[in-house]
Amino acid sequence: MAVRTNAHFQELKGSYLFSEVGRRIAAFQEKNPDRDIIRMGIGDVTRPIPQVIVDAMKRAADEVGTKEGFHGYGPEQGYLFLREAVAGYYQGFGVTVPPEDIFISDGAKSDLGNLGDIFDAECSVLVTDPVYPAYVDSAVMSGRKVFYAAATVENGFLPLPEEGMQGDIIFLCSPNNPTGAVMTREMLAQWVDFARKNGRLIVFDAAYECFIRDSGVPHSIFEIEGARECAMEICSFSKKAGFTGLRCGYTVVPHELMAGGISVRDLWFRRQSTRFNGTSYITQRAAEAVFTPEGEEAVEVNLEYYRENAAILSDMLTECGVKHTGGKNAPYIWMQCGTSEENVMDSWEFFDRLVEETGIVGTPGSGFGKGGEGYFRLTAFSTRKNTVEAAERMRRFFAAMK
Amino acid sequence: MAVRTNAHFQELKGSYLFSEVGRRIAAFQEKNPDRDIIRMGIGDVTRPIPQVIVDAMKRAADEVGTKEGFHGYGPEQGYLFLREAVAGYYQGFGVTVPPEDIFISDGAKSDLGNLGDIFDAECSVLVTDPVYPAYVDSAVMSGRKVFYAAATVENGFLPLPEEGMQGDIIFLCSPNNPTGAVMTREMLAQWVDFARKNGRLIVFDAAYECFIRDSGVPHSIFEIEGARECAMEICSFSKKAGFTGLRCGYTVVPHELMAGGISVRDLWFRRQSTRFNGTSYITQRAAEAVFTPEGEEAVEVNLEYYRENAAILSDMLTECGVKHTGGKNAPYIWMQCGTSEENVMDSWEFFDRLVEETGIVGTPGSGFGKGGEGYFRLTAFSTRKNTVEAAERMRRFFAAMK
Repeated sequence: MAVRTNAHFQELKGSYLFSEVGRRIAAFQEKNPDRDIIRMGIGDVTRPIPQVIVDAMKRAADEVGTKEGFHGYGPEQGYLFLREAVAGYYQGFGVTVPPEDIFISDGAKSDLGNLGDIFDAECSVLVTDPVYPAYVDSAVMSGRKVFYAAATVENGFLPLPEEGMQGDIIFLCSPNNPTGAVMTREMLAQWVDFARKNGRLIVFDAAYECFIRDSGVPHSIFEIEGARECAMEICSFSKKAGFTGLRCGYTVVPHELMAGGISVRDLWFRRQSTRFNGTSYITQRAAEAVFTPEGEEAVEVNLEYYRENAAILSDMLTECGVKHTGGKNAPYIWMQCGTSEENVMDSWEFFDRLVEETGIVGTPGSGFGKGGEGYFRLTAFSTRKNTVEAAERMRRFFAAMK
Repeated sequence: MAVRTNAHFQELKGSYLFSEVGRRIAAFQEKNPDRDIIRMGIGDVTRPIPQVIVDAMKRAADEVGTKEGFHGYGPEQGYLFLREAVAGYYQGFGVTVPPEDIFISDGAKSDLGNLGDIFDAECSVLVTDPVYPAYVDSAVMSGRKVFYAAATVENGFLPLPEEGMQGDIIFLCSPNNPTGAVMTREMLAQWVDFARKNGRLIVFDAAYECFIRDSGVPHSIFEIEGARECAMEICSFSKKAGFTGLRCGYTVVPHELMAGGISVRDLWFRRQSTRFNGTSYITQRAAEAVFTPEGEEAVEVNLEYYRENAAILSDMLTECGVKHTGGKNAPYIWMQCGTSEENVMDSWEFFDRLVEETGIVGTPGSGFGKGGEGYFRLTAFSTRKNTVEAAERMRRFFAAMK
């Protein structure tokens, strides 16, 4: 018998969203080499890594250059020093997580993609629509059936569980990517109840929790009673501390979480110790520094910078009469592709026109799912200069539209 | 329907080999807190990272701490500067690999585990026995049927393809882990011919190629004609440059490699851009430094150190009359668990007795598969002091055995 590829890859819709965005920008730039592009598409940060974290990396680099300080293979689950620091961070939300239930990884995207390995291939997936495309693409690659819960203006882009909803593994993201919408404790509790009653498992993506400032918004699903019996949580240093290029995340799998009498934590441990070999020691020391008082302070300065960027964009949209959500407790702004119901464009048309007329690159809402059609995502992660400039250009763009 | 775990995980044999080794050492140390342990079990290196590589990491850390030098998300496939450096390294063996076919990862273990994602779940796997357990465990987790080709004294621990051998995906590792045996060009060519004639795909694990000194031993499967049409290759900086704690590897998937008319390279690209987000920028700069003249020189000093360790162990075994292979062109020594056919023990018994009587930890051959029973793996990666001390202790151990 000849080797065969995974046919489910053929069911994927075109290229990965951000690759397609990149392709279109490259094509635009080739045609317009002199045009000045402002990138607000991919959710990448721009603030440099704070000095205290740089220093931690340099110390770690020096350390592995010495006989006594050399570090080879670390624990696949991550060093205890970092798992304890993460546990301390959780304690700040009033959540007790034992370090044994924390798994350090090279980033949330890896964990979000790989976690499917430990579940039955027949298990289906429920996502909200629009949705971060990696959840869906990963599920499709594994041949899983994907169900969608519509996130609409009517439900504030926050669908709630309903009797009869399908999907064995439920992906929830709050603060949400791409809509910037945030769940209250009460909303999240409804999902936890639903999952427990129906034997579902929630994967809670907390990648943007660091943007939360309202006390009514939970940072972790484990703030909700009963969540340990039905949920795992994935988080990242990417947005909190600018680690998009340094690669570090963590996944919490409570030892209380069982599926069919089997410990999900133990399976994840087995998966990670077989198909992963730990995160760079240098990166783990960098991540540890994030949780020092000096680190927390430096990180907060950057988060505040991005929050102000979000406010600049949000104020501009309000001024222009463009309906939008997000930007509060979240780094993403989710806007309609027009100033009124009459002139709303479809997402890729808006993408193309915006690049063409202003040089601003955002992310077409339809790239996040059917429910994103007619919407567009802006990020607050640009530099202040570019954010102010983008707001100015968009002001003119929308003025011309009316 | 309730969420269900992947039942194939229950088919795994106990814990991952090196976790079991770790468990037994911990138990031994608890009972014997004063005993001095020499670890030659897990294949972890001990030489510190060369200064030129440390400097590269520190420069990169400083860089990301500045506005101008900040690096966020890199290309999922790895930075071109590193892919070009790897291509240059291949050129040194006379192999031309375009940078587009090179994928930088966080280590060979991740790639070896994850590559199954792109192949049909029904595809079976062929491995040699004994074998690096991650190949088998990964295949079992995915529900793949695993076939074994016996590596025995009779075939010099290098099984060759035979008519009727099954297994759609063939894992080959040379220099071999655990046996230290190396394939000649002619042997590897037989596998390439077999794969091409029978529509199989070879995954060539070249993690130990840096130990090769004999010109008759290929560093890369792509030295063999026709290999680009049937093979992908996985390599690592772990052993070459001591990156076990820094995490970097690379996988070459030639654009010529097709399966059922589909480009395997394109599927791997899609997999990696969906379930992975690139390797740490700091680590990639470290890896780049490995290929500078100063880096190559420093790395060679360390490799030579390990080669001398291998010679010390091999000479001791010869002196004691213990049959063994490896240690030449390879960092592993594969020895019989006794001084003659009469006193050969089974592998775990030998493991326990060796720890008990000498404090030396090696890896039981049976942990690498049925064919490893009665054998034991030693590594050359220890410090010189410990290697010399271990050789002395084993000399006494074997003398008492006769």
